[in-house]
Amino acid sequence: MKISSRIVARLSVYRRLLHELQAQGTAYVFSHDLAEAAGVSAVQVRRDVMEVGSVGDVNRGYNVQDLLRGIDQFLDHPDGQKVVIVGYGNLGKALTSYFCTHNSKLAIIAAFDLEEKPTGYKQCKCYSVEKLESFVAEKKVRIGIIAVPDNQAQAIAESLIRAGVVSIINFAPVPLKVPSEIYVEDVDITTSIEKAAFYSGKLWSERLGKENASGVRKH
Amino acid sequence: MKISSRIVARLSVYRRLLHELQAQGTAYVFSHDLAEAAGVSAVQVRRDVMEVGSVGDVNRGYNVQDLLRGIDQFLDHPDGQKVVIVGYGNLGKALTSYFCTHNSKLAIIAAFDLEEKPTGYKQCKCYSVEKLESFVAEKKVRIGIIAVPDNQAQAIAESLIRAGVVSIINFAPVPLKVPSEIYVEDVDITTSIEKAAFYSGKLWSERLGKENASGVRKH
Repeated sequence: MKISSRIVARLSVYRRLLHELQAQGTAYVFSHDLAEAAGVSAVQVRRDVMEVGSVGDVNRGYNVQDLLRGIDQFLDHPDGQKVVIVGYGNLGKALTSYFCTHNSKLAIIAAFDLEEKPTGYKQCKCYSVEKLESFVAEKKVRIGIIAVPDNQAQAIAESLIRAGVVSIINFAPVPLKVPSEIYVEDVDITTSIEKAAFYSGKLWSERLGKENASGVRKH
Repeated sequence: MKISSRIVARLSVYRRLLHELQAQGTAYVFSHDLAEAAGVSAVQVRRDVMEVGSVGDVNRGYNVQDLLRGIDQFLDHPDGQKVVIVGYGNLGKALTSYFCTHNSKLAIIAAFDLEEKPTGYKQCKCYSVEKLESFVAEKKVRIGIIAVPDNQAQAIAESLIRAGVVSIINFAPVPLKVPSEIYVEDVDITTSIEKAAFYSGKLWSERLGKENASGVRKH
């Protein structure tokens, strides 16, 4: 069965919202409330939730805890999954601190940089990149995060793949060349910011245009 | 004219590749080379480039410098654009250092956090978040980056919008509720990593399945 990456992305968002509800002590949630919070339609939520095998109650909605368990089973690997991160600059540090404190099934077990660095986390040390391939192969790590400068990203991707990684999250703003059986998720922050900048220009001109048209004085 | 955010994203990627080519001293590039590097089809590249008004030479391809100028004119605001970032943790630092050193037309002119912090950049200080609205309004900033914890993101978005921001890049993994005339670009890092984790499980099972089927010994 081929599962669309959009369903996976939406389930990940629902899960975060459900965790919040759980923390607030909410026991049941309606599809339309979940839909509104996630920014999708209620029909979409019901379809996605059916995929993970949960059934709602017409009067009370979905049981938050049951739904969370269903999504966990669908998304998570039963034994948890090990992740390494390559590049321990500010971005690497941000990711490490987030995933060392938030997610129990997904653990960043090591970081790598040009040389060893202190991390402040016992469970996640930062080693010299020379040790990357042997570490990944020995610990059977299948997920790698690339947070190195642009011109090093391709070489790091190749090291990770040689050592057994099958899934890469790439923060370097360059397209990676990898075999077709490797999954790459590009997180292109520069492009996101450039897109927002582009639309800000358009939106602001539109707003000024409207204000002028309606006789509102420009400041 | 409505311009699709996908074209904008692709042009942003081409621009980075063209800058690299320029740095290497390459004067001309064929659409298929640009296409390969960007991971799209050559037809797509030619269509996008027509949008910015550049014409290639059948024998030599596109002039790198001309094409860069065309994309700059299309994407950038002639006077440059000011950006503020709210949240000066590791992620905020990573973004600030990148945009203080890489992009001339897009400048992070201030960061905001719970309290003032040293940044190491003269052109980008970190102020107390109390000053956010007056700063944004006074400096006429139209673009804001949200890099604060989840539970503060909505309130910060509202402050930014009140002060005149029309375009937001949201790194907090929560959907923002904003008026329809505001552009929001969500960069949902957690979901990206969870997607990659999900597919790593599938891909690894497939690989093991194939190895077993073809009689290759499992390590």
